[in-house]
Amino acid sequence: MSANPPSDRPAGVLLRAADADAAHALLSLAQAAGIAVTLVAPEPPPVPKRPRATLVGAGPGDPELLTLRAVRALREADVVLYDALVEPAVLDLVPPKARRIDVGKRCGRHAMSQAAINTLIVREARAGAHVVRLKGGDPFIFGRGGEELDSLRAAGVPVEVVPGITAACATAARLGIPLTHRDVARSLHLVTGHGSDGAVPGHDWAGLAASGGTVAAYMAARTLPTIAARLTEAGLPGSTPAVAVENASRPGERALFGTLAELPACLHEQGFSGPTLVLIGAVVALAQARKDTLHRAA
Amino acid sequence: MSANPPSDRPAGVLLRAADADAAHALLSLAQAAGIAVTLVAPEPPPVPKRPRATLVGAGPGDPELLTLRAVRALREADVVLYDALVEPAVLDLVPPKARRIDVGKRCGRHAMSQAAINTLIVREARAGAHVVRLKGGDPFIFGRGGEELDSLRAAGVPVEVVPGITAACATAARLGIPLTHRDVARSLHLVTGHGSDGAVPGHDWAGLAASGGTVAAYMAARTLPTIAARLTEAGLPGSTPAVAVENASRPGERALFGTLAELPACLHEQGFSGPTLVLIGAVVALAQARKDTLHRAA
Repeated sequence: MSANPPSDRPAGVLLRAADADAAHALLSLAQAAGIAVTLVAPEPPPVPKRPRATLVGAGPGDPELLTLRAVRALREADVVLYDALVEPAVLDLVPPKARRIDVGKRCGRHAMSQAAINTLIVREARAGAHVVRLKGGDPFIFGRGGEELDSLRAAGVPVEVVPGITAACATAARLGIPLTHRDVARSLHLVTGHGSDGAVPGHDWAGLAASGGTVAAYMAARTLPTIAARLTEAGLPGSTPAVAVENASRPGERALFGTLAELPACLHEQGFSGPTLVLIGAVVALAQARKDTLHRAA
Repeated sequence: MSANPPSDRPAGVLLRAADADAAHALLSLAQAAGIAVTLVAPEPPPVPKRPRATLVGAGPGDPELLTLRAVRALREADVVLYDALVEPAVLDLVPPKARRIDVGKRCGRHAMSQAAINTLIVREARAGAHVVRLKGGDPFIFGRGGEELDSLRAAGVPVEVVPGITAACATAARLGIPLTHRDVARSLHLVTGHGSDGAVPGHDWAGLAASGGTVAAYMAARTLPTIAARLTEAGLPGSTPAVAVENASRPGERALFGTLAELPACLHEQGFSGPTLVLIGAVVALAQARKDTLHRAA
C-alpha cells in the first residue's frame, strides 16, 4: 500500500491563539467575516466577570457591518438584550454561555416597555453580569439609548457606548447615494417619522424645506404621507427626488424611487411595513440616474 | 533532570484556517481586535486579482471602530489610497503586498487635489487592481465620496461603498451624549464648517436655530466663530450647551465643554487645530452634568 496521497492530509494553516478566550474571539470574528476556520484543540472558555453594561450599535442588520468593538462586546457578554431589528446572524456572534433576552418592539405591539427595559438592564448588571444592550443602528440616533444611559448612570453602573452604522449611512452606501455632495447638498438632517406616541413629531418643517440639504426620515413607513405633506406645505417642491428603503442590508431589502409627491401612495401600494428609511433631496437623483452601474460584491 | 515544567510548553489553542488567505484575514482581524494569535505554519498568501474599487469608511480613527467589511476590503486590496485622517494603526491592517498611497489633505495644504485623486483611483483600477479608497468617517458624509463615485461610474469601474462610523456618532458615544433624546432633541443636523473653498457654506441658519434638535458641525476648528455668530444671530441662545472634540477616538483626543457664546474663544485659546467636531444643543448638558460617571473600557 502506498502512503496517504497529499489530498488526504489535513490542509490549511495552523494558528495559535494565546488562550481559549482569544480562540473563541477569533472564531466569532471569523464567523462574522465569513472566513473558514476550525478549532483544532478546544478548551472550555473562561467566563469573564465584571459588573458593567455596554450599549452596542448593531448597525443596519448585516453582521459584516458590525464594528470590531461591537463583536468584542458581544463575545464578552453574560446577558444580551436585543431588539426586533437585530438580525439572527448577528445574534450568532453571542457566545452560547450568554443569556439572550428578546426585548424587541414590533410594529404597534410592544414586547417590553422602555421603562421595563431600563429596569431590566440595571437589575442584570447589579447582579454582577456584563449586560450588552444590542440595538439596531446607532444607540444614540432615535435608539432611546440616552434613556438607558440615564438609568444606568443613576444606578451607578459603569457603562460604555459602542457606536453603530446608522440607517442613513447604510442605505446611502447600498444605493450609491452621497448624503452630502458638492453643489448639491451641504448638510444632512435626520428626523424621525415615529415619535414616542407613534405620531410624527412637530419638526421645524420650514427649516427642513429650506435647508438645501438631504433629509433622512427614520421609521417613516406609516407616516410618510404626513411627512411629505408637511414638507410640501413648507415649500419643498413635490418634484424633489426621494427613495424609500425597507430592510436596508437585511433579507427582504427593497427600494422604491420616486418624487416626494408620488412616493407616499407608491409606498402604501407596495405594502412597505418593515423598518423603512426615506431619503429626500437632490442627491437621490444621482443614484436613480445611474443605478444600474452600481455594483456590490457578495 | 526533571521534565519541562508546564510553563515551558507552548501554551494556547490551535486553530486551522482553511487556507493562507483565511489565515491572513484572521491575523488582520485579531490584530485590530487586540486578540493574541500567532501563525504556526506560514504560507505566502495568494494575490486576489479583480479590477474594482471600494470606497471604505475608516470611522473616526480607532481601528476597533472599523466594520468587519472594511477590514475585509483592506485585506483584499492591491492599492490603498488614504487620507491624513486615517490612523497608522488602521493602515497596519493593509497587507504588506498592497501599495499605499498618501493622498491626505492637511490643514490648508493640499497633498493632492480631489480631481487628481479621482483620476488616480480610476487609473489604478483600470490597470486591473482592487483599489481601496480609505476615508476618515463615512465616505458619504462630508467625505467627497460622491465625487469619487461619479468618476468611477463614468469610467465604468465596478464600485462598492462600505459605510463608516461618522464623527458625530463616534463623539457622542465617547462622551455619552445622546444625539437624539426624548423631550430634548428629536432631530440631528449635520453641517460642515469647511466648504470646498475653505469658508463656512451658506447654511440655512434660521432653520438650524429653530430646529429644536442637535447640530453637529464638522471640521469646525477654525470656523466656529462664524458658525456661532450665524446661529446666535438667527435666534439660538448663546447659553445653548456645546462641546468641541478634537481627534475623537484618536491619540490626543480632547474635549472642551461650554456654551455656544463662549466656546469659540476657548477653542482658540486652547489651540484646537486638528479635526474638530462641535456638538450644539440641549443634549450636550446631559453629558456635562454627569461626565465623571462615564466609563470607557481599555
